[in-house]
Amino acid sequence: MGFGKPAVHKEDKMTKKIDKLFVNAHILCMDEPFTRHENGAVAILDDHIHAVGSSAELQKTYTAKEVIDCEGKVLMPGLVDAHTHVPMNLLRGLADDLRLDVWLLGYIMPVEREFVNPDFVRLGTSLACAELIKSGVTSFADMYYFEDQVAESAAEAGLRAVCCQTILKFPSPDADSYKESLAATEKMIKKWKDHPLITPAIAPHAAYTSTIDILGASSAMAQKYNVPLHIHVAETSQEVEDSLRDLDMPVVPYIKEHNVLNSKVIAAHCVHIDEREMHTLHKYGVGVAHNPTSNMKLSSGIAPINRMLNLGLNVGIGTDGVSSNNDLDMFEEIRLAALLAKVSSGDPTVVPARTALAMATSMGAKAIHLGDQTGSIVEGKKADLILVDLQTLHNTPRFKNNPDGVYSQLVYAAKSTDVTDVMVNGKWLMRSRELLTIDVAKLIPKAQALAGEIDQFLIKRFQSVYSKLIAVGGAEEQESYEVQVKVKVEDPQTVIEKILDSELEILYYRHYHEYDTYFEFDDPEEGWLRYREDEFIDAESKVKNIRYRLTLIGPKREKHFPQDVLLSRSRFIAPAPQSLRFYREYFKPSKETYIEKDRKRWKVCFRNIEFYINVDRLDEPSLGTFLEVKSRTWSLEDAEKKAQIADDLLRLLGSSPQNSETLDYVQIVESES
Amino acid sequence: MGFGKPAVHKEDKMTKKIDKLFVNAHILCMDEPFTRHENGAVAILDDHIHAVGSSAELQKTYTAKEVIDCEGKVLMPGLVDAHTHVPMNLLRGLADDLRLDVWLLGYIMPVEREFVNPDFVRLGTSLACAELIKSGVTSFADMYYFEDQVAESAAEAGLRAVCCQTILKFPSPDADSYKESLAATEKMIKKWKDHPLITPAIAPHAAYTSTIDILGASSAMAQKYNVPLHIHVAETSQEVEDSLRDLDMPVVPYIKEHNVLNSKVIAAHCVHIDEREMHTLHKYGVGVAHNPTSNMKLSSGIAPINRMLNLGLNVGIGTDGVSSNNDLDMFEEIRLAALLAKVSSGDPTVVPARTALAMATSMGAKAIHLGDQTGSIVEGKKADLILVDLQTLHNTPRFKNNPDGVYSQLVYAAKSTDVTDVMVNGKWLMRSRELLTIDVAKLIPKAQALAGEIDQFLIKRFQSVYSKLIAVGGAEEQESYEVQVKVKVEDPQTVIEKILDSELEILYYRHYHEYDTYFEFDDPEEGWLRYREDEFIDAESKVKNIRYRLTLIGPKREKHFPQDVLLSRSRFIAPAPQSLRFYREYFKPSKETYIEKDRKRWKVCFRNIEFYINVDRLDEPSLGTFLEVKSRTWSLEDAEKKAQIADDLLRLLGSSPQNSETLDYVQIVESES
Repeated sequence: MGFGKPAVHKEDKMTKKIDKLFVNAHILCMDEPFTRHENGAVAILDDHIHAVGSSAELQKTYTAKEVIDCEGKVLMPGLVDAHTHVPMNLLRGLADDLRLDVWLLGYIMPVEREFVNPDFVRLGTSLACAELIKSGVTSFADMYYFEDQVAESAAEAGLRAVCCQTILKFPSPDADSYKESLAATEKMIKKWKDHPLITPAIAPHAAYTSTIDILGASSAMAQKYNVPLHIHVAETSQEVEDSLRDLDMPVVPYIKEHNVLNSKVIAAHCVHIDEREMHTLHKYGVGVAHNPTSNMKLSSGIAPINRMLNLGLNVGIGTDGVSSNNDLDMFEEIRLAALLAKVSSGDPTVVPARTALAMATSMGAKAIHLGDQTGSIVEGKKADLILVDLQTLHNTPRFKNNPDGVYSQLVYAAKSTDVTDVMVNGKWLMRSRELLTIDVAKLIPKAQALAGEIDQFLIKRFQSVYSKLIAVGGAEEQESYEVQVKVKVEDPQTVIEKILDSELEILYYRHYHEYDTYFEFDDPEEGWLRYREDEFIDAESKVKNIRYRLTLIGPKREKHFPQDVLLSRSRFIAPAPQSLRFYREYFKPSKETYIEKDRKRWKVCFRNIEFYINVDRLDEPSLGTFLEVKSRTWSLEDAEKKAQIADDLLRLLGSSPQNSETLDYVQIVESES
Repeated sequence: MGFGKPAVHKEDKMTKKIDKLFVNAHILCMDEPFTRHENGAVAILDDHIHAVGSSAELQKTYTAKEVIDCEGKVLMPGLVDAHTHVPMNLLRGLADDLRLDVWLLGYIMPVEREFVNPDFVRLGTSLACAELIKSGVTSFADMYYFEDQVAESAAEAGLRAVCCQTILKFPSPDADSYKESLAATEKMIKKWKDHPLITPAIAPHAAYTSTIDILGASSAMAQKYNVPLHIHVAETSQEVEDSLRDLDMPVVPYIKEHNVLNSKVIAAHCVHIDEREMHTLHKYGVGVAHNPTSNMKLSSGIAPINRMLNLGLNVGIGTDGVSSNNDLDMFEEIRLAALLAKVSSGDPTVVPARTALAMATSMGAKAIHLGDQTGSIVEGKKADLILVDLQTLHNTPRFKNNPDGVYSQLVYAAKSTDVTDVMVNGKWLMRSRELLTIDVAKLIPKAQALAGEIDQFLIKRFQSVYSKLIAVGGAEEQESYEVQVKVKVEDPQTVIEKILDSELEILYYRHYHEYDTYFEFDDPEEGWLRYREDEFIDAESKVKNIRYRLTLIGPKREKHFPQDVLLSRSRFIAPAPQSLRFYREYFKPSKETYIEKDRKRWKVCFRNIEFYINVDRLDEPSLGTFLEVKSRTWSLEDAEKKAQIADDLLRLLGSSPQNSETLDYVQIVESES
């Protein structure tokens, strides 16, 4: 039987027995004309909707094995969660009220690297499916790792799912390279291609996390097997700014250039796309997944869904998974889609309730490219149906003067907990709020036990600045010791002349402008964490390049030699690819000190030992110029020897160690303020 | 015992029996330091919290008549709904997806005028109290009519309430004048002043719906009896624009000038206030009630709550009643308060979960001036407590590495349906989700019956454009008949000269520029509804004033006399104080036609009969000039006589009725396009 056309003949009706007959329902078909039946009936045969009409008519025509009396309830298509990450149900509430980068790089990704495996994915998916069923969802489009396991658990739960295997340009929990991911995806597509519930698919994570090769290969595979391609598009303004800066175009033209739009695309988020990009998405039949809670919670922005809807784009609604939501309650998402469109446009008439509900049913199904199978109550479509009780206290009273009142009741007043019964593909998944395919009581303790392990991992990791640094770090140097001596100089030019005129062999000269932010913590034992921007100044006094580094500085000097030569330890040096803001929010310092200085640095050889000579002019705060002499060291004996030579070098440069300064610059600044 | 100070002595504890002991609870005290007890206990004596501590400690110290094992649950202060209109529970879903003015003037106020009485208020309040209890609310601040009945029903339900009697400058459902309302308010304050649950109060509805006298008298009464004053403040940008235009200042300085801020103010909404107004509110200890769903749904805007919180203002959270929400689910409001602050500020770290929860408990209690009685779990405060089950599927798993995780679980994942038990003033109102003080099953059919009556009222009212017009109208003229004849003229100047040079007695001359929008409807029998802006042009060709009028024009001519003189009927003329946009949204026309014309009009006396002569130049669309001759008529005989004379008048002005135009301008335009 073909989908989407009336496939039932009168003569069939007179004789054929059916499996299930819903009667006395307020039916919302969610088809194009928004057909409603106030006292309606739906006949189910096997996995599909056999007939829709009035209760009186269908009761005369059919004999059913099971008759479902829907008195006081709405019978409607099951909801479609158009973008989610179901295994992340195990990470609910792991970290909240954080910026996207801190949340992702500081918490989610490290935990995923450590914990995500096939068992994790199966457990998380099963719990998510239970939650989805309880909130009336019958179809979802997922994007995660080990998507084969997502498919297995979703099929077991009886839900319809588009299972999209993530492809990334860097190693992921399920693959060391994107080629490995592509191979696994192809295998998964072949395995699930003909399953009645599962649509296997491919998910290049986003333009900025893909190479051109990944985008091309993913689209080619999606086209070869005629499966959807799921991708994050323009979720944050940062993504768009980066795209404009690095690629000279916004995100949609970029993925179009790399053939992504030639496949059946599900574009998640689309928060920051312009009119032209919307037109492009529309032209290529791209489905959009709008994620209101997640976009609000991570303050990604407000997607211009009203403009998209006016252009005729299919915009579905997604939960984005519990880790940024923090639940899978589609009733909340539908309501928010309507509310957010109103407040952002200044027009309370946009995205009325009926439209919002369509986004979560018929239009959502089209957005995830399952529109021919599900999303509306139409003869021939799969029997993916839910019953919603509108006789509850918070749904009372109900007005009937406006035929759209029932949509508004469902969107603005009803709760996910009003969903009483759920059917997918003609099979019951929930009756009277009892789940029939998933044993939640067995799964919850497992999830809680795993949460305990993750708690331990995070507690250990967050016990010190050092371990937090390791976690986001990527060390350049693990540890280094230096002997050093520092004096304030009144006439820097004389010192510089002495360096140039002396017996010293100059190995190189560098000129920097350094902007240092020192983080301090409640526990003084943590020492200082320094975030440094190093501007390298060339011979023509121009900034040549900038280096960003984090240095963890021990709280105390290791040793204090005669003449105030010090042995100091820097515990950790790492590149700092994130912003100062990121590190501030990640490390949560209790105090910050800012120092700006001009540094002229010579690497010299003096008595066969390499020294660094720094002439540092402190500009912010303005504290004069200091001469620093430093050398790396590896043993105490070596350190003692070098301490003596450093002392001599200082004298050679005309300074007396009598005036030496034993405090670090940050301490000097603090003692001055 | 005084509130807010430890009132329990050790010696009491050793001997005294208590009434109730909560044990094994995860207690969130919501006090200033956000005290938490992971395995905590709370002892209740009579109506108040007697002691808070660990389960082990309190179980040793006290013997309770009733011990409540809270395993797996959070015990926290009951929620505070800081701004609501509880009787409006009976109007849930009456009208949605409309602009504030259409919603209020077109639906809510007409229905209120017709249906609101003491019985309505009692029934609505009882249902609302049931819904509030089920979503964990223990205190609310109401504003409506017949507030004495709100107080009665709230007290019966056992909820704590600030019951604020509305004062308006125009007649309201419970009073013909504001003086009557003030007298009723004083009576109510005296009646309820010492009730353990009810705080009677006064509510001048808003600055723009009050006179200066109302503001002054309300504040004086609030101060005399030391009760709160509840008022809507700067809910829409329109309100602020009007205030700036008419009063030369924003809303807060205006109400301050009229002494409102000298009382204990609850300021609802505060969507459009500036930094200076926030400082003023803070200085006067005003409590703010933030209503996220309502502000989004009516697209009023986003209140700058993060800035208010940073200034130290007490910002509570309100539902604003179901008619603009459409439920009383404070869990949704708390979540939205957090989400909306994040997306509007672009910073996901603002209004973290703990702050959002404080807004709905301790800070909310302060905002409605009940902070000394409720809102936190502190010895001596009233026992207003709720239990929330965090072991449900959608709350799984729970991470413990972050002590704030439990707040985030409650705000972002938990649902109102997770509230299992509610206690107010030491008395149970709900146990295991069973309501103990309200018989909902008896009330729902009553509410549904009333909804049926309202449906009938609205159906009758909305059955024709005429009855809808009557409902928002305020007729100038109910009906009028005219004979008229119209011809196209090629040389208007000649016609005008003839008017001036003829034997006609000119009674007056007017010059207008007219901008007409004609609404048409699916049913052609409805005729046209014309919205006209009449610019009156003075002798110096300047616009002197503008009149806005609605005219309902019958679909067909009543009679067609010889020579194309017509008898026409205009069914209704009314002033149009609202905008074209308002009428468009209210009447929902299926088609609109716009006509702009220049009209020179003479009222003349011709053969002892008054005629209007119009020389109309149609500018938009440009269709040339027409000469119209019209006269009012009252009987068919009179009409026949005047038809003949009109014909003669037309000939006198040099035009031949042979060329006459029988179509109305809107029909001419339609036939041309």
